[in-house]
Amino acid sequence: MSAKTLPIAFQGERGAFSEEAARRLAGSEVLVLPCNRFEDVFRALKDGRAGGAAVPIENTLAGSVHENYDHLVNFEFPIVGEASVRIVHNLIAPEGVPFSRIKRVYSHPVALNQCLDFFAKYPKLERIPFYDTAGSVKMVMEKGLTDAAAIASAVAAENYGGRILRRSIESDRQNFTRFFLLRTPEFARRHPLKPKDHAAWKTTVVFSTRNIPGALFRALSAFALRDLNLTKIESRPLRGKPWEYLFYLDFLDRVDSPNARNALNHLRELADFLRILGCYPKGA
Amino acid sequence: MSAKTLPIAFQGERGAFSEEAARRLAGSEVLVLPCNRFEDVFRALKDGRAGGAAVPIENTLAGSVHENYDHLVNFEFPIVGEASVRIVHNLIAPEGVPFSRIKRVYSHPVALNQCLDFFAKYPKLERIPFYDTAGSVKMVMEKGLTDAAAIASAVAAENYGGRILRRSIESDRQNFTRFFLLRTPEFARRHPLKPKDHAAWKTTVVFSTRNIPGALFRALSAFALRDLNLTKIESRPLRGKPWEYLFYLDFLDRVDSPNARNALNHLRELADFLRILGCYPKGA
Repeated sequence: MSAKTLPIAFQGERGAFSEEAARRLAGSEVLVLPCNRFEDVFRALKDGRAGGAAVPIENTLAGSVHENYDHLVNFEFPIVGEASVRIVHNLIAPEGVPFSRIKRVYSHPVALNQCLDFFAKYPKLERIPFYDTAGSVKMVMEKGLTDAAAIASAVAAENYGGRILRRSIESDRQNFTRFFLLRTPEFARRHPLKPKDHAAWKTTVVFSTRNIPGALFRALSAFALRDLNLTKIESRPLRGKPWEYLFYLDFLDRVDSPNARNALNHLRELADFLRILGCYPKGA
Repeated sequence: MSAKTLPIAFQGERGAFSEEAARRLAGSEVLVLPCNRFEDVFRALKDGRAGGAAVPIENTLAGSVHENYDHLVNFEFPIVGEASVRIVHNLIAPEGVPFSRIKRVYSHPVALNQCLDFFAKYPKLERIPFYDTAGSVKMVMEKGLTDAAAIASAVAAENYGGRILRRSIESDRQNFTRFFLLRTPEFARRHPLKPKDHAAWKTTVVFSTRNIPGALFRALSAFALRDLNLTKIESRPLRGKPWEYLFYLDFLDRVDSPNARNALNHLRELADFLRILGCYPKGA
């Protein structure tokens, strides 16, 4: 099988928001490989069991998925695409179970926390943390629970034959998760994205600076002096150097534009460490 | 009771690393109030049940405790101190239970993950996530388990009468957690820290910028142009404005030094929002 026919790995059960992102980024007909943990997703790509991966990188309410930032720098798979998925939470139960009988609600703790207005309205519902949103639907359906429901996507309800009792119960509609599509370096080389294919591009880099006053300011000057627009900056601890940091930075431009090349050469002068993590069409 | 005799709240059971931080920051004889969740810690301070709080803000391996950054801006209690606690993990079991009989190990998932070299050496040990490090010792002791151990601090072992089977099993010795001491605004006003009391000071602020190219660079210029040394920058999503961020920033200086005052006035010109979260003696 070529990397093109190998599945796209993602964390979670079938019907997870990550699967929606995978299909949006790699095509609705793509094969998928559900994995238990984020690290397993990266390992599947490394072991050649997957040809790509869809991983969440940040959510507009919960913030960055820091573990995946760490994996990006450790595993070195290029980012070739991004997509934002609107997170819509639904209350899902087996067919025939009415809302009035629901006593317990299972879901991932982040999802439970994103439905606090709903739980404030029905204070008798007990919230039970589960490892995965789609996985909680799978469990409620497989056990045929008659007094419990799960919170997950509409796709998860469909996948496991659950019925949606309440639609869109998330407290904040401005709830989006941004995903990266990763590919093997070989795949990225054989299928390069052409400049003309897209109007807007993003580049993601990671760097560390010397621990001196003004170091971050100078690093950012490489972009500001060339009018390059930063869309995100994230800091993560540097292992073995307490209170020093790696900075992950997204800017709007192709990595090979003259302007970006000059900026990255400038940053290379100032940084202790610099790596380009990917260049990809800006998501909608 | 005055705020001085009210307890210091922290998250976790007695013997948690947060209790160690509380005693280091507020005195070894201080009364303490263990709380279930971080939000409960802030609520205890708000409701007047606590006179202060010790909260973890970042770990040199795991990174920032983002939830507490969010609470800092929502609850508005001034930061009056900081301390770094070295995280030493120990394997703890009831008296009389030998290492050879241990099959399961309970602890907080972050602590389990910080002892991976230990678990690689003993692959038959099953890791079981628990809500709290010290709480896992309490549980193992209360149930008198004879085939299980917990991972926690030496203080937790002492507190619950557990025996340390293996000392300092953390994979990375560069494992420190930085804590903030928060006080009520009244307490901070009545017990101001004097400039002469300390050689080095830190100030923590939070701000947001307009979403225009170079905005963060310009914000940082307020500090760089005055040679103020930034020790930390952290971004968190801004609620209701997808893909916009709040920035939390620590710099080395008193908030009322002429230099810092000028920098903050400059930042105020550039920022949409700016709040000073605290000024405190730099921790060791």
